[in-house]
Order: sequence, then C-alpha cells, then structure tokens
Amino acid sequence: MTLSKKETTPNYCLEVESALKYGIEEKVMQMFTPLSHATSIGKKMDVRVATLAENFLEVNNTSTDIDIDSLVEKFADSNVPIEPSNFDSYFEYLANNVVSHSVQTSSPKFIGHMTSALPYFVQPLAKLMTAMNQNSVKIETAKALSFYERQALAMMHRLIYQFGDRFYAQHAQNSESTLGILVSGGTTANITALWCARNAFLGPKDGFLGVETEGLTAALDFYGYKGAVIIGSELMHYSFDKAADLLGIGTRGLVKIPANREGRVDISALRQAVAQCRLQNQYIIAIVGIAGTTDSGGVDALSDIAEIAQQNNIHFHVDAAWGGPLIFSKQHGHKLAGIERADSVTIDGHKQLYLPMGIGMLFLRDPHLAKAIEKQASYTMRKGSFDLGKRALEGSRPGMALFLHAGLNLIGSQGYEFLIDEGIRKTQYMADRIRSMPEFELLAEPDTNLLIYRYIPEPLRGLVAKKQLTEIDNLLINEFNENLQKNQRQTGHTFISRTTKIISEFDKKIPVIALRAVIANPLTTEDDIDIVLNEQIEIALKLQFQFL
Amino acid sequence: MTLSKKETTPNYCLEVESALKYGIEEKVMQMFTPLSHATSIGKKMDVRVATLAENFLEVNNTSTDIDIDSLVEKFADSNVPIEPSNFDSYFEYLANNVVSHSVQTSSPKFIGHMTSALPYFVQPLAKLMTAMNQNSVKIETAKALSFYERQALAMMHRLIYQFGDRFYAQHAQNSESTLGILVSGGTTANITALWCARNAFLGPKDGFLGVETEGLTAALDFYGYKGAVIIGSELMHYSFDKAADLLGIGTRGLVKIPANREGRVDISALRQAVAQCRLQNQYIIAIVGIAGTTDSGGVDALSDIAEIAQQNNIHFHVDAAWGGPLIFSKQHGHKLAGIERADSVTIDGHKQLYLPMGIGMLFLRDPHLAKAIEKQASYTMRKGSFDLGKRALEGSRPGMALFLHAGLNLIGSQGYEFLIDEGIRKTQYMADRIRSMPEFELLAEPDTNLLIYRYIPEPLRGLVAKKQLTEIDNLLINEFNENLQKNQRQTGHTFISRTTKIISEFDKKIPVIALRAVIANPLTTEDDIDIVLNEQIEIALKLQFQFL
Repeated sequence: MTLSKKETTPNYCLEVESALKYGIEEKVMQMFTPLSHATSIGKKMDVRVATLAENFLEVNNTSTDIDIDSLVEKFADSNVPIEPSNFDSYFEYLANNVVSHSVQTSSPKFIGHMTSALPYFVQPLAKLMTAMNQNSVKIETAKALSFYERQALAMMHRLIYQFGDRFYAQHAQNSESTLGILVSGGTTANITALWCARNAFLGPKDGFLGVETEGLTAALDFYGYKGAVIIGSELMHYSFDKAADLLGIGTRGLVKIPANREGRVDISALRQAVAQCRLQNQYIIAIVGIAGTTDSGGVDALSDIAEIAQQNNIHFHVDAAWGGPLIFSKQHGHKLAGIERADSVTIDGHKQLYLPMGIGMLFLRDPHLAKAIEKQASYTMRKGSFDLGKRALEGSRPGMALFLHAGLNLIGSQGYEFLIDEGIRKTQYMADRIRSMPEFELLAEPDTNLLIYRYIPEPLRGLVAKKQLTEIDNLLINEFNENLQKNQRQTGHTFISRTTKIISEFDKKIPVIALRAVIANPLTTEDDIDIVLNEQIEIALKLQFQFL
Repeated sequence: MTLSKKETTPNYCLEVESALKYGIEEKVMQMFTPLSHATSIGKKMDVRVATLAENFLEVNNTSTDIDIDSLVEKFADSNVPIEPSNFDSYFEYLANNVVSHSVQTSSPKFIGHMTSALPYFVQPLAKLMTAMNQNSVKIETAKALSFYERQALAMMHRLIYQFGDRFYAQHAQNSESTLGILVSGGTTANITALWCARNAFLGPKDGFLGVETEGLTAALDFYGYKGAVIIGSELMHYSFDKAADLLGIGTRGLVKIPANREGRVDISALRQAVAQCRLQNQYIIAIVGIAGTTDSGGVDALSDIAEIAQQNNIHFHVDAAWGGPLIFSKQHGHKLAGIERADSVTIDGHKQLYLPMGIGMLFLRDPHLAKAIEKQASYTMRKGSFDLGKRALEGSRPGMALFLHAGLNLIGSQGYEFLIDEGIRKTQYMADRIRSMPEFELLAEPDTNLLIYRYIPEPLRGLVAKKQLTEIDNLLINEFNENLQKNQRQTGHTFISRTTKIISEFDKKIPVIALRAVIANPLTTEDDIDIVLNEQIEIALKLQFQFL
C-alpha cells in the first residue's frame, strides 16, 4: 500500500526516532488492551468493518471490471511500513482497493464455483473464534474446544457410518480413537487419507519398522512389491496428484480410469485395473471413489467400488468433499449408497455445509487407523493425552470446530436437507431451460447440483442437432465458449466458470470446453438462473458478430 | 449438545414433518438473507457474541478447574439435531460449556505456549474475512485479494532477503514467480519447503520425468543415490518427522544432530554428518537450521549452516516459525544472521506476528523453485494465471492475507520491533529472577523469549549447587516438576508448560523435565512473572509436604 511517502522513509535522525518510538509503544499497547473494544477506537473499528461487510454483501454485481494490470499496479509496493499506520486510512485503503475489487461469492448470480453465500451466524462466530484464539493442536491451548470438536466430528461420522450408540459411546470421546480429523481443506483431508492407508498397510512387521520409519523403498522391498499405486477415476481432484507426488509414489502411480459422460467411473475398467496392478505386483494404496466430481458433480457407483475394494482387501477412500452433505437428503441420499463402506471419507465444511473457508474433514471407519500417522513431541502432544495434533498432518490450527458444531445445530439435519434438495431442484430447472433453448447444448445430465453445457453459435446449431460437428467445428465452439466465459466474468454482472472435458470422438480424445454452473447459493432463484443464461446469449450475440 | 429431547426425536408423522419443514425453510432462508445483520436477529447475535468475547477476554484466570471426565461427559452426544436450534439457546450453551471452559491464551499469566493476546483489530477483520468469503485458491474467487496476498508476502520476503527494488518489481506481482506461499501453519510450510527441495533436485533430466512423476524409488535410482535424508538439529520441530514420513524417506531419513545446552546444533557434527551421508551416497534433500526451537527458543548458527549447505550445493531451509520476526529488531536481529542465505524460510503469523491461528508462511529465495510442485486442473488453476493454488500443498483456503497485510501496516516494522524487544527484555528479567531464587534452577541461557528451568525441592538444593545430583535425584526432581506443572495448570490461575530435555550425564542420556515459559504476551508485566513464579513456589511447598 502507499499511504504517505513520509511513512516509508527510513532516514530520520535518532532523536526523532526515539520520540516516535514512545508514540509507537503506546499505540501498540493500546491494540492489545482487552478493553479497547469498549473504547472509542475499538467501537469505531467494529462499526467501520461491519459497515464495510454490509456494503460488500449488498453489491449486486459479481465483481468489478478492473483488469489484472491495474491490480498488479495497486499492490506493487513491497516495503513494510515503518510506523503503525492509522486505522482510518488503512480501512479506507482496504475498502477502496481490496474489498471493492473482491469477488461477490455470495451473489445469487455468482453460480460458477463451489463458494456461495453463508449463513449470517458465521460472521459473529468468526469474531468469537479470533477473540478466544484457541489452538486446537493440544488440550493445553484448547481445553473444552477439543471435546467439542470431537463431538462435532462424531456427529458427522454417525451420519456417514450410522454405527450404534455403543460405538459412539466408546469412541467419540476416547483419546485412543480418532473418528475424524479436522483439517484446513479437502486437499489436506485427501492427502491424510492416503497417508493413513499407506502407513497402515505397509506398517511394522517381523522386525521391519514400517514405511513411516524406514521409507517407501524399503517398505515395498520388505513387503515384496514392485511399486505402489492409487486407483480412481480420471476425474479425481488434483489433490490426488499432490498426494501421489508427496507420498513418493509419483503421479505416474495415480492410475486413472475413464469416466462416462455423466462423470462416473467405468466400474469394469476399474476392476480390470485392480487385477492388472495385482498381476504386476503393484501395491494398491487405495481405490478412490468420488461423490461429486469437481468437474461436473458426478457421483461414482460407490457400492460397486466398495465391493471391489473389499474383495481385494484394499483401502477404499471416498472423496465426498463436494457431495458428502447429500447424506442429509431423503430424496438424494441414495446417490451416496456405499459411502458407509468406505474406510475413509473427505467432506468439506466450506462447500455444502455452508461454513467459512478452511474446514476440511476426514472421517475414518476404523477409529484406530490414524495411529499409523501418530507423532509425538515432548513440549506438546503427549501419548495418552487428548491432544488433537497427535494424529494430523497439520500442527497449530484455529478452532474451526466452532463453525461446524454451530452449523450442525443452528441449521440442523432438516435445514441441510432443505439446502441440498433446493440446490438440486434448481439445477434441474436450469438443465430444463438449457435443453429448451436452441442456443445451448447440455453436456451431461446432472447427478447433483453441478451442470456443464455450452453455447452453440447460430450457424453450427443444425450440425449439433444432426450430430455432424467436425473436429474443426468443435475447436471453433471451444474458442467461442472460452471467450464467452471470459467476457461474462470481466463484465462482472453474472458468473459461470468453465472447464475442459475430454471426450472420445473421431476415434481420438478431443477437448470440449464447457460452461460450468454450480447451484449452491440458497439465494439464487429461477429468475437469477434465467438472467445468467440471458446474459450469456446477449454476450454471445455480440461475439458471434465478430465470429462470423 | 443436548438442548431439548424433542429436537432429537426422529419419529413424527409426515404431516408434522411438512409443517415443520415450512418453518425450517423460512428459518434457513432467513440465515442467508444478506440484510439479516441489519435485522433484529442479526443485531442480537452480534451483540450477544461481542459480549461473550468481551467477557471471555476479561477473565483473570488461565482456565477453569474443570476435569477431563466432566468435559468428556458434556460433549458425549453424537446425534445431529434434526431441526435448527434456536440461536439463543445455542449461544447460551456455547457460553456455558465451550467458551467458559476454554483456555485464556491472552491472559498475562498464561506464559507457557506460543499463543498469546492478539491486537484488537484482528476481531473485526475476522468478521470481514468471513463476510467476504473469498477463496484464495484462484483469481476467480479472490480477485484483488490474490495480489494483496502477493504484496504482503513480498514485504516479508524483502525483510528476510533484502533484495533490491528491481527484484521485487520483477517478481512481486509476476504470475511466474512465487516469493512466498501462505499456508495454514508452520507444519505445512516446512513440509512444502522439503517437498520443493526434493522435487527440484530430483527433477526431470535426460528423458527421466523426475521424482514428481516417477516417484522416489525411481528418482534415487536414476540419479544413482542409495537413499535420501534430511539433516538438522535433534531439536527440529516434529513437523520434520511428518515431512520425512510423508515424503517417503521415512523418519529414519531424518538425521538428527546433537544440540548444546542452549539448544544450538553442533556445527562440526553437522558438517561430519553431511560428509558421511555423501560418502554413503545418500541424497541430502535439505539441511535444516532452526531460528527459535520450540523447546527452548535456541537459534542455530545459521551462517555456519549456510556455509556448509552452499559448499555442498544442498538446499538450506530455516525453520523460523517462532524466531523469524526477530528480523524486525535492531537489537536482536543479528541472531538470525545467515537467514538471508536460506533457500527457504518458514515463519508463522500466529506466533510472533500476533495474528490469529492459521497463518503459516514459506518464503523462497528462488522465485521459480515452487514450479517443482506446480499442479494444474482444468476447472481451475490454469497455466499462466495468477491462481495462487497452482503452487501449494493446500487447495481452497480463506483470505488470511487480510490479517498479515493489516498486521504489517497497523503494527508496522517499529511496532513489531517493540514487541520483540519487550518479549526478550522480560525474558531476561525472568531469567534473572530465577537465578536469584534458591527454589529454581535455570536450565539454559535464553537466546530469545523462551525459558526453561525447574523447581528444586528444598532437600536437594545443596546437591544441585555442588553438582552432586544422582540419577535417582534427577528422576525425583522430574516427577516433582511434572506434578507441579499439572497442579498449576489444573488450578487455572497461571500457566507454564513443560518439556523434556535429553541431557548427557552419568555417561548416558537422561531426561530432564523442565518448566517452559514463553514470554510473548505484550500484556505480561514483570509483576505477572513474579506472580507465576510465586504460585509455583506455593504449589511446590504443598507438594513438597507430600514428597518428603
């Protein structure tokens, strides 16, 4: 930021410096005084920020049309201000430069990513969490919160696995058991799942200390495997690439099985891959099932995958980061059938549980599986303690359980059911609209509340209907849709994202650029959906003029 | 939680259900209405939570004396409430069960962990961050915030490396460059550093696709190494155990070099270990230097380690999670000399930058190093874009940059200097007090603002003075100090943590249980320090009575 030049000038004489320093001490100490929120400056900040937040949430557009170059210029200065900046000028700066050019993820017409409006209670809770400043890594810095977190995770575990009262009485608040791990996001949850699976199956045996201690090469050698793989749909989230890379098996060890048009993995191809890996003496760390692909929301046939995993005694992980909350729905929960047979399940709180960013969760069927990754340290996290950091990838972390527990209580299972049902209902509405409009082509029947489609320029519509598009036509349509999406995003009234589907046609794999809608915001109405589609038609007409 | 039994009873008839559902829809939609903060319910929640936070921060104790069994019982129910709970009763529940039994990390007498009071401005900012709900993984969900984050990270980078204006003009806002990665904590930062180091040095070459693609075994094989190691002090944070485990080298691959009494690694032993690993044809992923051990705050001789790393062309990583902010201090910054030669540096925002939990940072000397871990996905994170998630372990994440940028501006470099200097000054005061009191033994001269010491029961003081303690005496003192710390923690008036030092004596390694003070809270006065020590003496006198 550039407040005033004076503040970044380091060449003042020592006398001035010590005079300044006196002021600085006072200023700094004032910031830490617990009563400062009752003082005028604290109150002023509260009101200022509340108004800023309020105004932000009232904006009707999805973003401003500021371009990248202007943003680059705004944030170019890399000097740390020497003196404490004045609150008023900093918040003014924040309002004009950051808040104003942020993305209106809560806009009913921002229907392109898995980020949407949040229930209002998360705002005061965020303040409370920060005021409490608990560190969930250990009991000494998180006392009640450790048990409260375990309770919230047990609730979610119960929704997935539906074990009985006795099971939860035994494990929910038992320091030896880990029903779930709260992490910063789905990526960390997926990595942790595969880490647990790798370490548990290649563990200590007959004097060998296990992969955790002796490393992957030695472990594969000891157990007599040629290599290690993870098997799942080609639509697996890119966090699995990260996991394969991190865990030392390499992304080549990620065996990707084709998915059909609706985004569901080909079960017989999956079965074949498992057999082939076994034949090649590859150790299969896990089979991954997806409950809601990031790409188009497809849900794999989880029961079929569970069957294969069980028959072969392989860890079955379900990435339900997006689709997990379908378990709340009587109408749609059946799509997740088989998830209860998973050894581990990832769910994101900041997606369809409508909680703030930074809440990933991993659930474990076996309450003792996480012991495979347990670590200790003398200054913290002692054996036998309730220190939650013992069995986790992360160390110090905020008390995000506040949001999860509050969400489960303040929204309730019926509240979540309503949110899920509504999202899918409106997605069906959008699919119907797209089918009925000559301008668009629906690219897949939606399983959940993600939808992929594309705009077809007028001269090519006949060919689409007759299924006579050439490869060149497809490339033209791709280019057109990419321009359409960029144009819509830059205009900033409405927002739809885009993705690239790889489709088999003309005897080869060809890329199809798709427009991608995510209908999760409860505030999005059918009218909003119509507005988004109509804006696309409007933009397309302008582009078509250039295109022809 | 157990609100009312009725709410968890699932057996009502369908008619009641649909009637309830109507109510539920309304309740849920109300939570999402952007104007609800202006309505009475929103305002009520704000006031309620503000009061809760205010009351929490005013409590004088460090915690309540509630025991683990009572907490276990409080949070035993694992059923998700069916209907949305009432705000009032939920907040009442929260206040009485969670907030009231949380740890007063901001208490001036809570001087046992790296979690302390925070400046007031973080509270309204937390609210703003949640209201904005940006997802920093990609530009489409974080527009201005992406550049604002890059700016804040560039500021920190500049403090560490002090490259010139031209360097920062070229890299700070260049999508091809990564000066820093904002992560959820120091653990993830350390893991990421070693991940980058491993992938960069075992990268693609002569047709070999590199460790990222082909895995660790193939990479070591291709490059002709027998194995891989990470070398550093025996006091390395336990996140390095996690890293060695995750990255596939195994914790045996973590070569731990002895540290001296002040917690500094033995440089000649380190040099020898490097030579020996080379001799044994072990690939050295990185040498780790510590700037502030978690155990006792010791700072390694970073320049010496830099020299060794440079001579051997090995990645030099500095874990400055705790001690990094010493760079702000003219008086103490010299202790970090050599950090500017590190290839990567970890710093935690939630430690000595006085920001909320969840802000870890990794800084990279080479702006292109992080390309070694780059991943892409078609629905997000495109090549050439400013999407920050391309080069990171994590995916979706909150806009924590708000706190970092605000801290650097609102506290300023002189404000941070004052905080650092004060912490170390008060630690010296405490060390002086301990030295002057016959009841205590100082276990190491503090390098920074961590202090380890122990209580010596009266009958053994003479032996300590004469250095005539037997091994049995030491065990008795250990037991005594463990009880003392637990007793003090449970009483909840003041708090000091404990750790176990391994010391060479009697020709073997013996454990010494130490009391561990962390003086970071700006509100902690010399009087508070005296009170904490006096309470320990009081508790010790009672325990001594049982002990004799």
